[in-house]
Amino acid sequence: MPKLRYLTAGESHGRCLVAIIEGLPAGLKIDRMAVNNDLARRQQGYCCGSRMRIEPDEVDILSGIRKDETIGSPLALYVANKYFKIDRLPPVPMQPDTGVGAGILKYDRQDGRDILERASARETAMRVAVGAVCKLLLKEIGVEVAGHVVALGPVQANTAGMIFAQILERCEASEVCCADLDAGQKMLAAIDEAKVNGDTLGGMFEVVAAGLPVGLGSHAQWDRKLDANIARAVMSIQAVKGVEFGIGFEGGMSNGQLQIVRAEMKPISTTIKPLPATDIQTGQEVKTEVERFDVCAVPAAAVVGEAVVAIELATVILDKFGGDSVGELKHNVASYRTVCQQRQVS
Amino acid sequence: MPKLRYLTAGESHGRCLVAIIEGLPAGLKIDRMAVNNDLARRQQGYCCGSRMRIEPDEVDILSGIRKDETIGSPLALYVANKYFKIDRLPPVPMQPDTGVGAGILKYDRQDGRDILERASARETAMRVAVGAVCKLLLKEIGVEVAGHVVALGPVQANTAGMIFAQILERCEASEVCCADLDAGQKMLAAIDEAKVNGDTLGGMFEVVAAGLPVGLGSHAQWDRKLDANIARAVMSIQAVKGVEFGIGFEGGMSNGQLQIVRAEMKPISTTIKPLPATDIQTGQEVKTEVERFDVCAVPAAAVVGEAVVAIELATVILDKFGGDSVGELKHNVASYRTVCQQRQVS
Amino acid sequence: MPKLRYLTAGESHGRCLVAIIEGLPAGLKIDRMAVNNDLARRQQGYCCGSRMRIEPDEVDILSGIRKDETIGSPLALYVANKYFKIDRLPPVPMQPDTGVGAGILKYDRQDGRDILERASARETAMRVAVGAVCKLLLKEIGVEVAGHVVALGPVQANTAGMIFAQILERCEASEVCCADLDAGQKMLAAIDEAKVNGDTLGGMFEVVAAGLPVGLGSHAQWDRKLDANIARAVMSIQAVKGVEFGIGFEGGMSNGQLQIVRAEMKPISTTIKPLPATDIQTGQEVKTEVERFDVCAVPAAAVVGEAVVAIELATVILDKFGGDSVGELKHNVASYRTVCQQRQVS
Amino acid sequence: MPKLRYLTAGESHGRCLVAIIEGLPAGLKIDRMAVNNDLARRQQGYCCGSRMRIEPDEVDILSGIRKDETIGSPLALYVANKYFKIDRLPPVPMQPDTGVGAGILKYDRQDGRDILERASARETAMRVAVGAVCKLLLKEIGVEVAGHVVALGPVQANTAGMIFAQILERCEASEVCCADLDAGQKMLAAIDEAKVNGDTLGGMFEVVAAGLPVGLGSHAQWDRKLDANIARAVMSIQAVKGVEFGIGFEGGMSNGQLQIVRAEMKPISTTIKPLPATDIQTGQEVKTEVERFDVCAVPAAAVVGEAVVAIELATVILDKFGGDSVGELKHNVASYRTVCQQRQVS
Repeated sequence: MPKLRYLTAGESHGRCLVAIIEGLPAGLKIDRMAVNNDLARRQQGYCCGSRMRIEPDEVDILSGIRKDETIGSPLALYVANKYFKIDRLPPVPMQPDTGVGAGILKYDRQDGRDILERASARETAMRVAVGAVCKLLLKEIGVEVAGHVVALGPVQANTAGMIFAQILERCEASEVCCADLDAGQKMLAAIDEAKVNGDTLGGMFEVVAAGLPVGLGSHAQWDRKLDANIARAVMSIQAVKGVEFGIGFEGGMSNGQLQIVRAEMKPISTTIKPLPATDIQTGQEVKTEVERFDVCAVPAAAVVGEAVVAIELATVILDKFGGDSVGELKHNVASYRTVCQQRQVS
Repeated sequence: MPKLRYLTAGESHGRCLVAIIEGLPAGLKIDRMAVNNDLARRQQGYCCGSRMRIEPDEVDILSGIRKDETIGSPLALYVANKYFKIDRLPPVPMQPDTGVGAGILKYDRQDGRDILERASARETAMRVAVGAVCKLLLKEIGVEVAGHVVALGPVQANTAGMIFAQILERCEASEVCCADLDAGQKMLAAIDEAKVNGDTLGGMFEVVAAGLPVGLGSHAQWDRKLDANIARAVMSIQAVKGVEFGIGFEGGMSNGQLQIVRAEMKPISTTIKPLPATDIQTGQEVKTEVERFDVCAVPAAAVVGEAVVAIELATVILDKFGGDSVGELKHNVASYRTVCQQRQVS
Repeated sequence: MPKLRYLTAGESHGRCLVAIIEGLPAGLKIDRMAVNNDLARRQQGYCCGSRMRIEPDEVDILSGIRKDETIGSPLALYVANKYFKIDRLPPVPMQPDTGVGAGILKYDRQDGRDILERASARETAMRVAVGAVCKLLLKEIGVEVAGHVVALGPVQANTAGMIFAQILERCEASEVCCADLDAGQKMLAAIDEAKVNGDTLGGMFEVVAAGLPVGLGSHAQWDRKLDANIARAVMSIQAVKGVEFGIGFEGGMSNGQLQIVRAEMKPISTTIKPLPATDIQTGQEVKTEVERFDVCAVPAAAVVGEAVVAIELATVILDKFGGDSVGELKHNVASYRTVCQQRQVS
Repeated sequence: MPKLRYLTAGESHGRCLVAIIEGLPAGLKIDRMAVNNDLARRQQGYCCGSRMRIEPDEVDILSGIRKDETIGSPLALYVANKYFKIDRLPPVPMQPDTGVGAGILKYDRQDGRDILERASARETAMRVAVGAVCKLLLKEIGVEVAGHVVALGPVQANTAGMIFAQILERCEASEVCCADLDAGQKMLAAIDEAKVNGDTLGGMFEVVAAGLPVGLGSHAQWDRKLDANIARAVMSIQAVKGVEFGIGFEGGMSNGQLQIVRAEMKPISTTIKPLPATDIQTGQEVKTEVERFDVCAVPAAAVVGEAVVAIELATVILDKFGGDSVGELKHNVASYRTVCQQRQVS
């Protein structure tokens, strides 16, 4: 098994979301505010177009820490669903080609909600929480990660020449997680317009990193290539349909460059226009219920992308450097960096 | 990854224990009473010698079911710790050779409690809960599992000639989980005597199964052998120091026989006699705190053994037969059984 | 562990390439000609621009079959390197940003060849062999896969409206693995021109499938999503820098559609123009050796893409349907298909 | 995935045995003589009672090294079967309860040889080769492992008070791999007697280690416990039916003690007395063929046990310390050891 493992659980309108993370070194300070901050960044995105205040997600750490510090035990993370109502929701009919049909057949269900509740992007809240913990670990060895929006609807951002710190600072200040502030304003306008028209918007986000050691991942077996593993993680985000790499990898290994990955998102499929569907129990044509009003998930997905990249990086870093305490990990990383620098200088 | 995965979390005196189970087929009725019953069976064992009533563990299923039925989503199980007091407990010094020393060094901790809280057998409550869910799955295809005590201190049970149903019924009626009722009475007396003398007792438990399909596991690669995987699962139970197989396996595969595995337990090491130890922060010799009064963990471990064997069996059954709904699984198992019967008859 | 596993080994100019595949059902006829045919298709591609005849790769099956049929044992596949000369090749200096630098630092090597020999696309021959075996398995349950070139240099293919059988037949007849025969001619010309200019060409390939059961993969945990796993497999192919999905997936599950994945390739970096580099042992600037003359790897990569998709499909099919003999697998698949059809009709 | 992975392939009377090992650090000198020496030690054991000279196994390293040193690539190991005759061997009928019956049904085969060829202990030659490579790695960080026989038939060895170096030296000098030389003589006599009587003998072997770092494995999740993983590996050796641990583990972690594990073996089932069996194709009762004349597999199994323990130790050592070159690994281990010593002294 890998050094770092995690599983998530929880339905969109169920009681809660849960994750167990296992294999983190001991001695890592867990800053709940940092986790909650990332959870809020994700939510802000998914509500874009509305600016209404939804009650923010808050993480509860059920196990694995003492005095806010990891002790080697698994962490159990818990996020309550504020809008818990799964048993009061109407059944979801089978919609050929759009969403839940494959799951209904695979799992032999009658109500599409049994699939939709877990397939929904609500699940990504937990990956953001796990990613936030991994970001705390990365920070200990000088690695930082940031996801930001580079295209939204018809608007393209221009971040050419920006260094990591600039991207991080600017996209944190942006309501659409965009480091190009002008483009960010246009994106907001595009969202407002789409909302009026009942449309949804796709776009593109990018994840960048600073301070990455050279040589994470490996060329030696296909499933150890870091770019391939990052592609898997990013492609698993709801509505991501394309993933693209720039110059940050050599033979499946990190080379210390800034840019990690770009991901393209399709417009979210659940629009406010009802779709035709078949009720599984009666066989009759019905209209689908309208439940969500998100116009654009790209800013939220940028936060999720940042999280899943952080998880993959933490995974390969622990694989390469080992270490069961933060001190041991830091020492091993520092020694390797010293050797690399000596070789690069000579 | 395997079809079935699970992770557990939680400290002995922390807020709660948590597990996430993933990969169960949809359509499995989850009977909370069955899970709670196994949790109670485990506790009864650990308190043997006292007969005092501790408040029983109760499972809460946080996700993964609707109308008490699995839907393909991961299950999150939660058991509250009734005696939650981790922050009020005294530090645990390093005890060379008995318990927490290796963990203190590995994870670079100051307080042995950081290790002890997770290393303790309290964690097995969650494996019992996961195992109880797996037993529900096994039952759907006619497989049953039972753990029972075959030796406790100086007392040996005689279960020669008993069939599965007899073992199950009798050990359920026994306070020490022993199918030989005479031996069970003697075991109770041995426990009482040990308690008076401040001793603890080891012993042996056995796990038996009925209705197992032939050909679970595989000879084709060492880590697919079912007996080897069961050995791993049983050996991971606290205080188990030996594992032994009878005639139930051929080349790493099940052959349909009753007996699965026997495990030998050493007496539990935390006795009521304080041990010498070193306080990590002061370097002074101290006496260890006395926290537990269990005289004998064998009956409890038999329940845990039953659970972990159930998990391994569910794992190989899902590997062999696939199936994402209970109906699909049952159909695939039934077809295979028919083919096997035809060949064995012909 | 998953039901199907494989590992590959071998260096580009070493003695041979080897793979072990484990978990295939017994009773699968292994047609060596089919494997050799796919090996030849891969080679044809990599030599495009030259049309010189290189001696074709041939697979040797060292274990796992009797009378050309699998028996449940692991298969060991062997492909000799016809141009075996690893010990007579000159050292490869460290080339910052292009190729082997990260590996030299990671593995602390002096000679870049230690990395390049395994990082090279020669390794994909073994994945093609493994994929060819998986295609034989898929065929047993009526699933077929084909990789074909949709863009090469400036030329775009138009395959709109083609069904699977057309794509398969036409790209088999094409020297550049392109189903649009007109475009194929232009691609050949583009390659010839590039060769004259000492350039290399990128492009795009697509993998399509026919006969896929609905509901492969799962939405229930991020790493079970089939599109995500296919993205990983395809991104791990040398020089692939982007992966993109169309309409073939719902919530991470197959929905029976034709199109699987598209992948974008950059031009191969080892051109005939020598690059500046640093000799690790002397510290002096040197020119890189010119070893390869491939102008365009896209047709070859289409064959590799087809292979890795076949492997991923075989993996999820065995996960969903189990089965340790071809008969058992076929039966389980057929039963599921019947149930799905009944539900879709009703 | 774990840092270290391996798969083996090959049938007992097929052309060869093959293994691929992946994840070893670069810069490890591979001493073929050391591997061949362990292969010979294994064979010597399996032939005990005969003293006839069989042609020794020899390893061929097909990939993964240059100038006898690992380079980060996977190693492919190859051992030819000197007695290659799989296609000339008679079919093996189904023997209920003894051997191949479960496999015949699982894999739907007609000839029991399809199962027996892979289920046989011949496969362990490859695990010995992989283990020999892992022992070379362990040696780099000062860890040594030795398997030796502690009981054979009615004879018990007495090794109380012996240190590691004594056990190693004496059992290397012993024809039955026994460190108690007097007992070794009696074991030889017992084997001779059993041979005359047409019997086979069981026994017990032990694996000991020196120089183990404290804190390998983990208490944090059941499947990370080192003793549990070693139990799995040892139990997967043919004819091992019991595994037992002494004082070398705390909470699933190594504590630096000498003794690792003891394993009990049953007498080998293929005796020279033919057994009744059913021919699958005719349904008639037949006598089983007599193919092997081994009287006692315990000395050979001690060598296999040593190998599989070495593999498990290398696995957890790479998990704990990371490192992609031998230098990096050694540095990380040394740093950890220094910290541990400082804490244990203070």
